[in-house]
Amino acid sequence: MALRARALYAFQSENKEEISFQENEELLIFDDKTVDGWLQGENSQGQRGLVPASYVEIIRPRSNSNQTDSSLSPAGSPSNDSSFFLSALHSAFHMQQSNDDDDDDDWEDWDDSSTVMEDEDSRRGGGANGHSFQSPYNSPNAHYRSKPYPERHDSISSSRKGSMVGRNLNRFSSFVRSGVEAFVLGDVPMMAKIAESYAIEMGPLGPQWKESPQPFSCSIEDPTKQTKFKGIKTYISYRVTPSHTGRPVYRRYKHFDWLYNRLLHKFTIISVPHLPEKQATGRFEEDFIEKRKRRLILWMDHMTSHPVLSQYEGFEHFLMCTDTKQWKLGKRRAEKDEMVGAHFLLTVQMPNEHQDLQDMEERVDSFKAFTRKMDDSVLQLTHVASELVRKHLGGFRKEFQRLGNAFQSISQAFTMDPPYCSDALNNAISHTGRTYENIGEMFAEQPKHDLFHMLDKLSLYQGLLANFPDMIHLQKGAFAKVKESQRMCDEGRMEQDEADGVRKRCRTVGCGLQAEMNHFHRRREVDFKEMMQAYLRQQIIFYQRVTQQLERTLHMYNNL
Amino acid sequence: MALRARALYAFQSENKEEISFQENEELLIFDDKTVDGWLQGENSQGQRGLVPASYVEIIRPRSNSNQTDSSLSPAGSPSNDSSFFLSALHSAFHMQQSNDDDDDDDWEDWDDSSTVMEDEDSRRGGGANGHSFQSPYNSPNAHYRSKPYPERHDSISSSRKGSMVGRNLNRFSSFVRSGVEAFVLGDVPMMAKIAESYAIEMGPLGPQWKESPQPFSCSIEDPTKQTKFKGIKTYISYRVTPSHTGRPVYRRYKHFDWLYNRLLHKFTIISVPHLPEKQATGRFEEDFIEKRKRRLILWMDHMTSHPVLSQYEGFEHFLMCTDTKQWKLGKRRAEKDEMVGAHFLLTVQMPNEHQDLQDMEERVDSFKAFTRKMDDSVLQLTHVASELVRKHLGGFRKEFQRLGNAFQSISQAFTMDPPYCSDALNNAISHTGRTYENIGEMFAEQPKHDLFHMLDKLSLYQGLLANFPDMIHLQKGAFAKVKESQRMCDEGRMEQDEADGVRKRCRTVGCGLQAEMNHFHRRREVDFKEMMQAYLRQQIIFYQRVTQQLERTLHMYNNL
Repeated sequence: MALRARALYAFQSENKEEISFQENEELLIFDDKTVDGWLQGENSQGQRGLVPASYVEIIRPRSNSNQTDSSLSPAGSPSNDSSFFLSALHSAFHMQQSNDDDDDDDWEDWDDSSTVMEDEDSRRGGGANGHSFQSPYNSPNAHYRSKPYPERHDSISSSRKGSMVGRNLNRFSSFVRSGVEAFVLGDVPMMAKIAESYAIEMGPLGPQWKESPQPFSCSIEDPTKQTKFKGIKTYISYRVTPSHTGRPVYRRYKHFDWLYNRLLHKFTIISVPHLPEKQATGRFEEDFIEKRKRRLILWMDHMTSHPVLSQYEGFEHFLMCTDTKQWKLGKRRAEKDEMVGAHFLLTVQMPNEHQDLQDMEERVDSFKAFTRKMDDSVLQLTHVASELVRKHLGGFRKEFQRLGNAFQSISQAFTMDPPYCSDALNNAISHTGRTYENIGEMFAEQPKHDLFHMLDKLSLYQGLLANFPDMIHLQKGAFAKVKESQRMCDEGRMEQDEADGVRKRCRTVGCGLQAEMNHFHRRREVDFKEMMQAYLRQQIIFYQRVTQQLERTLHMYNNL
Repeated sequence: MALRARALYAFQSENKEEISFQENEELLIFDDKTVDGWLQGENSQGQRGLVPASYVEIIRPRSNSNQTDSSLSPAGSPSNDSSFFLSALHSAFHMQQSNDDDDDDDWEDWDDSSTVMEDEDSRRGGGANGHSFQSPYNSPNAHYRSKPYPERHDSISSSRKGSMVGRNLNRFSSFVRSGVEAFVLGDVPMMAKIAESYAIEMGPLGPQWKESPQPFSCSIEDPTKQTKFKGIKTYISYRVTPSHTGRPVYRRYKHFDWLYNRLLHKFTIISVPHLPEKQATGRFEEDFIEKRKRRLILWMDHMTSHPVLSQYEGFEHFLMCTDTKQWKLGKRRAEKDEMVGAHFLLTVQMPNEHQDLQDMEERVDSFKAFTRKMDDSVLQLTHVASELVRKHLGGFRKEFQRLGNAFQSISQAFTMDPPYCSDALNNAISHTGRTYENIGEMFAEQPKHDLFHMLDKLSLYQGLLANFPDMIHLQKGAFAKVKESQRMCDEGRMEQDEADGVRKRCRTVGCGLQAEMNHFHRRREVDFKEMMQAYLRQQIIFYQRVTQQLERTLHMYNNL
């Protein structure tokens, strides 16, 4: 059953799945159920396609006077499957909602779009976590533009309420989409019962997350190839053992991916570490499995080190659940969690110490400049290290092997005039040849011991750094609202109470961001120290081994 | 005054300087003085150009009945300067004959054709020493085809005598040109007085040169830029100090070149080490001077190590003469030496021990196969080592410097958020960056310590190996003559005495070659052992230095 809707703002489609419309244009909406913030509709010109839900207002259908609420009901009328688009969206949506172990899991790995985004577009235009929402209906054949976050009650309700402070006209701004605008403007209602609570305390360098009362670590080991459906489907299972339970659970990449998407959904102002890249082909190859394992370990280290993320209920479920039925129940529970996005901000306990907003903004600016430079240099080092890996496997190996071959060839020549064949010298030269061939192999092997680990860590940091621009954008938006409300207050168009409320909630956003900045810096110091030390140690061992090989070889000449 | 001549054999010109003619064709010769084995003449079709002297017989001019000798007089009538060719040849020829310190020395370095010939043509078709005669009139603009050796009295006289054993029809065969054919056939007359004498003795591995009674070494040091003509001309002077006199003499490259050409002229069956390459441009550049010095040192080492070459009078003159007037006199004396080419074989004293000719031939065949393989592998190692030098200066250096830069960049990023700027870590990372930049420089510098020396030695051996094919060819020619004369003897067409003489002289050639083979092998063992040891030692030092640098750098992280 089609619904009529009115466009609140003009919208320009950016790909063929979307349709454009003007402000106030009347649209047909085929189903009021949003999928990931989008509706299926038709504009006044008869073009059919996706419509951003937050841009339109559903007009109460004349035929159904019982429904008075113009807000979009998440549990709306049954889907209208006559539409190709909606049907595709729905089936994908249902897959996400009820994707159990028994379902086809091709989607988890088929999408080989990197979760580590390097292009400006996805880093700036993506979600609050700096990358596109990993929606499961990204088919392997159609790479969709980043979709906005699912629209939530709060932002819809705020648009109805029509607060006195101006709304951001760009409905696709992550500030709006994330719900942080609504939160700052006081449009996110306090929930009756809040079970969760994450405290920010004032540390020596500013706001920081209060440490988890029960810190733990978690190992990821032993990736093992498993089959089901009598060998038709194959997947890799990892043994995941949290230190505080000591009881292993077995998880697949798709479980990590499910958790990751929950994290993105819930923690708007937290820098969620990106999962290692998906890969379509070769995902059962030893090198790939090994690389994914190493990167999952780093991801897990970052998760357990984070005072907020480590305490997330969905994470706990991921780490502890061993029963299939419980697993499904826990998943559903996590998926129905209401304290997500802007609501999460309600669970944050602020420090008592006052922090000047200007100081806060300066710190954020400073951090912003830092992340840009760090992002550049991490990218630079990544390129250099990748190229060095290539050189190790190719050029370096080849050069040393060629040298080895040439020595061998000299040694062979020297055996060809038997009366003058100096066996000891020939053996020594031949051995020198083998030594250099061996050194060539050592060069080719070396990245496994040093550069790969460096690249793993750099990849994690690329992901973390990619999250910050949008997080900073949220805080900037909150600041703008504070200034705007204060101006209105000064002009007598707003009560001081209300302006103070905006200021207070902006401070929550800023404190959260600073706690994240603080956490990032602390991890960065530990991680980069460890990375550099590990690299240097392995390099030293490498060059020592080369030296030893050469010394043993030289020794063969001493007795000639 | 033109002379008439008759072509003994047909000749096909191979470039535009030469003229073709048929057997028995009558030619005009403008001057009976040969330059490097060539005459200037005109064929019956009126074409003017160069004629190979050994292909023609001068017909006694009717107008001058006093001259009865149809052989070419080396001190013939004055040159006919009306001819462009002859004029050019003569002026060059005179330059060679009387090229003193005061002469222009551009010719010495202008010709950048390598003395180390790698192309088949020059190695097979060149002189007995495996490369083209370094004639001084190779102008920078005209690269002449290799010219044959200067024709000598003996081969001309032998062609007159018309021995019963068949002559090689290919007058350009090095066997013929070198005069070894004439020697084997007994056509090189014993000289009245032979001052020189070089003994071959039977060593454990066959014939070998008797060691010099007064072995010595000779240093080459301190290449110094000198000027003359008030700074118009610049050249490099080397301090050359023989160990047995301890008195330094100062020599330029052109003096070495003069000596080298004397050696080629005199020692047909000896492998004369090639001089380091000539170079047209950049010859005053530090690297070039350094390289030439290193290679002259190796050349000198080989000279002084050789029992025959080290005792050559011209070499002694080169090493000891300090007086300008004496220098010129000594040069003239050396240039007038008659015991050159095949005549040199007259000065060789044979061992008493009998060596079976077949055994001799087998040894030579085995050596021939060996030199081919060694030549290939020396070339291979040269290519690999050259490429490795290029990699050290380019790729390796660049990779490490890029890594260093990337670390520096990381360190700079870390200073950008001052409250969180961990100075000690940043310093350590920055220092790591400098360390890798430094390691890059070390890689670029390293060839000076190892690969350059390897390439120097390989270059010397390329030269020595290039000499052998022609030397072996001479011995093969001698063998063929033995078989031919024995057959004639068996058929009663030759006295046994004469055949025995051929056999005996062939043995002289074979013994000389074997002595050279022996000397080569002995030097090869010493040189390659030294080369490999030096390379490995320098490589070990290099990797130790890299390790030390990395260890010091790692240490900076320990106290963080």
